[in-house]
Amino acid sequence: MDLRKDAWFIINTALGKVMPDQAVERALRGKSFGTGKVYLTAVGKAAWQMARTAAAILGDRLEAGICVTKYGHVKGEIPGILCLEAGHPIPDENSFAGTQAVLDMVGSLTKEDTVVFLLSGGGSALFEKPLLPGEELADITAQLLAGGADIAEINTIRKRLSAVKGGRFAKICAPARVYSIVLSDVLGDPLDLIASGPAYPDSSTCEQALAVAEKYELRLSRQATDLLKRNTPEKLYNVDTVVTGSVRNLCLAAAEVCEKLGYRPVILTDQLCCEAREAGSFLASIAKTHQDTKESLAFLAGGETVVHLTGKGLGGRNQELALAAAAGISGLKDTAVFSIGSDGTDGPTDAAGGFCDGGTEGRLRSGGIEIARVLRDNNAYMALEAADGLIKTGPTGTNVNDVAVLLIKRDSEPENGKDSYEPIF
Amino acid sequence: MDLRKDAWFIINTALGKVMPDQAVERALRGKSFGTGKVYLTAVGKAAWQMARTAAAILGDRLEAGICVTKYGHVKGEIPGILCLEAGHPIPDENSFAGTQAVLDMVGSLTKEDTVVFLLSGGGSALFEKPLLPGEELADITAQLLAGGADIAEINTIRKRLSAVKGGRFAKICAPARVYSIVLSDVLGDPLDLIASGPAYPDSSTCEQALAVAEKYELRLSRQATDLLKRNTPEKLYNVDTVVTGSVRNLCLAAAEVCEKLGYRPVILTDQLCCEAREAGSFLASIAKTHQDTKESLAFLAGGETVVHLTGKGLGGRNQELALAAAAGISGLKDTAVFSIGSDGTDGPTDAAGGFCDGGTEGRLRSGGIEIARVLRDNNAYMALEAADGLIKTGPTGTNVNDVAVLLIKRDSEPENGKDSYEPIF
Repeated sequence: MDLRKDAWFIINTALGKVMPDQAVERALRGKSFGTGKVYLTAVGKAAWQMARTAAAILGDRLEAGICVTKYGHVKGEIPGILCLEAGHPIPDENSFAGTQAVLDMVGSLTKEDTVVFLLSGGGSALFEKPLLPGEELADITAQLLAGGADIAEINTIRKRLSAVKGGRFAKICAPARVYSIVLSDVLGDPLDLIASGPAYPDSSTCEQALAVAEKYELRLSRQATDLLKRNTPEKLYNVDTVVTGSVRNLCLAAAEVCEKLGYRPVILTDQLCCEAREAGSFLASIAKTHQDTKESLAFLAGGETVVHLTGKGLGGRNQELALAAAAGISGLKDTAVFSIGSDGTDGPTDAAGGFCDGGTEGRLRSGGIEIARVLRDNNAYMALEAADGLIKTGPTGTNVNDVAVLLIKRDSEPENGKDSYEPIF
Repeated sequence: MDLRKDAWFIINTALGKVMPDQAVERALRGKSFGTGKVYLTAVGKAAWQMARTAAAILGDRLEAGICVTKYGHVKGEIPGILCLEAGHPIPDENSFAGTQAVLDMVGSLTKEDTVVFLLSGGGSALFEKPLLPGEELADITAQLLAGGADIAEINTIRKRLSAVKGGRFAKICAPARVYSIVLSDVLGDPLDLIASGPAYPDSSTCEQALAVAEKYELRLSRQATDLLKRNTPEKLYNVDTVVTGSVRNLCLAAAEVCEKLGYRPVILTDQLCCEAREAGSFLASIAKTHQDTKESLAFLAGGETVVHLTGKGLGGRNQELALAAAAGISGLKDTAVFSIGSDGTDGPTDAAGGFCDGGTEGRLRSGGIEIARVLRDNNAYMALEAADGLIKTGPTGTNVNDVAVLLIKRDSEPENGKDSYEPIF
């Protein structure tokens, strides 16, 4: 049975569903926004693609729109949308100017109006209006990093030093409604963290901000101290949020394709977070136990694994996961594990990830390639190339983390039909 | 909700079911063995316990019996059973003498007779009749190890140099029937590997044995070479085998208890084999994704993880798994992960394993204990002691590897009732 063909089909179809354009289309199609005017704001690395699709769907309903993305990411004109480029990951004058242009557009709307807010990764740098001089902001961040503050602590401080972060952008849009469409690149979709949540209520408090300042003995100007005491919106009544492209969507899309191919899909997690090769071994352990299955099974694990370098070879976390799994599933019939990064780039390679089946380990061994050694050298690319196991998609234009899939294919059809995987997610 | 209470109940009940005596009782209760005579042979580290239970159940049906176990493992007399002790892990003269006593007992039975064969870990050394002088056997093993042969290759050779391994014991018992009850300590229960399979058909061939000899350029006497050319039984028509205590039974027993407590159990694997702390992180990833569940869930992973030492602290693989999971499930409501070694001894400690819940990480942090650092030091025992998370059962008298369980408890009852977990195993 051709598991490779199944894998490629799952990858292509699932990736298609988390492309920014399809994600935006899913979120906007059939939506009407009352009788008022509709404005569009798109910020982040995928802003141009998202804005293009949204503009096409909104058509004449669109009053005006602004897109702020990273340098080199504007791919052409979009009718009705002002497309700007700015600094990332460090915000620059163009970030501030672009943000101000957005604020000018949405600052005096009525409660009949709607702001369609398209947010993607990178928005934190691209969409910013600091309430302090740039030098002091940079100095405070440096103090936090030097003290070992974690990302939650840094965000608690920085949200209060910004005019748009921590839900403040949505406040500026009020009384107009904000329809926020989020393409998430952060595991678990913590909406107050993605781009520091311009249109999402802030769960952190002034007390926490002051406690962080004390903990790291921050040197702060009088102005900065005052800002830390100013609340960000705890609740927002004018915002609807849809997370439309995220690793969860990627997992759900992949599970749906698996089901169409006759597998019973089991989504284990969409927040995978451990050493890549160990995740591969864990999936292989699952494969060994479920060999007696009568129906075809697909176990899915989305997220973002890590690799600790011990060698100087070429590879990436998805390639290491698949190759480690190959050792564990060696000799198993009609069993495969593959793993891909949704952006099409796994580590510093031209591959998106790797595919291995029950025969991979044997073929490598015959060729004198020992998987344990390859992993020690972080050289998965070479081994997968030799085993014809590299998955190459090219840059995909989206980035919603990774998904790993274990396939166990059997002759019979799934027993429980359409609804079988829903209870498990 | 008291997840700790649930965990302790699951542990106690599940361990009870994989004790050698309960395992033997399950396999023998209600069995009749026709009109012939019944002989008992018990070999392995749990042989005495298994023999005692079997003798009590067989009662007057028992004609004679011999138990060969490790030095110090005979805990008293068993009526009708000759209890012998011998060398382990290196076989000695008492191993050979005990084995010969067994062969004398079963060598001239009729086809109406039955040999109840109780096998547990350690049987390979305790039950042996070499076909070569001991020095040559030791020399061949040394050559194989020096050449880097794997366990499958070593077994392929050694089975042919033994009068009882590789199914040959069952041949000697013929025409009597052999009822083989196996307590498995090897993942996946490979019956031809457990104690080198005295009563199980050998899947390796003479061609493979000669190929191994060639591959490692073994120096062999004429006698040894001839032995490699002699077939072991490919098929056995007089044997029934029941694996009654194994990590699979442990998982199934734990799953059954989980179900009684209102959890929907999902057995992920009974062959877990990866770095302990990463398995903990993987389970925590699963926990995060399934927080929205309406029914209580229990994910089970049985097997045997490994620990790579990077520090000099005190701990064990089960404790590391639980503690790593604690970091991942920090803050999650009514969520816990625990892991135990079924023998009651995790690493060089007096604990069987560890228990952590959503509050463990926070409590440790308040006490100045950082989990990442503890794991770096391999010091899980100390942290779990501080968090009241050590599981202590004392030595249990069985050894069927480990089981780790993720519990997510919710108010409602399981939706699908009794059958809900069966399709997934």
